[in-house]
Amino acid sequence: MKVILYMAATVNGYIAREDGETPWSKEEWQNFSKMVKSARNLVIGRKTYEAMKENDEFSKIGNPFMVIVSSKSLGPGVTTVGSPKEALRMLKKEKYETALVAGGGKLNSSFLKEKLVDEIYLDIEPLIFGKGIRLFSEDDLDAKLELLGTKSISQNTVQLHYAVLK
Amino acid sequence: MKVILYMAATVNGYIAREDGETPWSKEEWQNFSKMVKSARNLVIGRKTYEAMKENDEFSKIGNPFMVIVSSKSLGPGVTTVGSPKEALRMLKKEKYETALVAGGGKLNSSFLKEKLVDEIYLDIEPLIFGKGIRLFSEDDLDAKLELLGTKSISQNTVQLHYAVLK
Repeated sequence: MKVILYMAATVNGYIAREDGETPWSKEEWQNFSKMVKSARNLVIGRKTYEAMKENDEFSKIGNPFMVIVSSKSLGPGVTTVGSPKEALRMLKKEKYETALVAGGGKLNSSFLKEKLVDEIYLDIEPLIFGKGIRLFSEDDLDAKLELLGTKSISQNTVQLHYAVLK
Repeated sequence: MKVILYMAATVNGYIAREDGETPWSKEEWQNFSKMVKSARNLVIGRKTYEAMKENDEFSKIGNPFMVIVSSKSLGPGVTTVGSPKEALRMLKKEKYETALVAGGGKLNSSFLKEKLVDEIYLDIEPLIFGKGIRLFSEDDLDAKLELLGTKSISQNTVQLHYAVLK
């Protein structure tokens, strides 16, 4: 099973404003949505889950199988697991070919630190924030990547596609 | 006079490790060097100046006219100014066509916050740091960009070129 991290970020590595706002382009959202529909699952952290729920986003991305990595249970009907590894074990058992990891920064750091990510898709939006939620929350991690490709997904948004070297 | 900000950064927006290390590609350095030789000047902050001096980098980039933005004087023979605007006034007076701003994060933030930057060149290195010095130090700023172009400068390094919308 391939583990893909998919995120949109500003030029300086923020995945949201401090208040969680993500003013990304329509094309970015379409691209993400397409990726989720293909993978049919989404692995996210609790805050990302709550933000997506509040914005009623699940049906728009084809109601994927949601795995929430959270230290506390989110109630009946929501699949929560305690760790990144547990999330991947569950998706593997269910025979998914791709696990799609999509934030937030804390979850991304955990996955990368544990060397669980195979590929990264990063949509770079033409914005700079002075503050916000970072692509990878501050942690002792260090990764080398290999550029697999670049793609223009709109006039001002570039998608970078990397393999994570292990 | 056009004001260009030129930086190399990791995928997640760090321009150096915590200790100042910048393990960038040879091609990135060559590209930067070429840009400095063309502009014949460099506007940097005190810490960047000290790091470049320690690594004996000035002759390698053609001994450009150095303008250091610093609240304290750095001794005779070093041109220090107290603010980004003063740096630009000085270069304008000397008839430079391009002002080349190149870090660190604090200086970059000051220039952007004061809406002094016209274009940004960002070389994205295939690395992720968990901690380090950020492309723009945390500040109340927000900028919208227009993508002018992308260029592959080595197998794994992409250069993004933006105009800053004002």
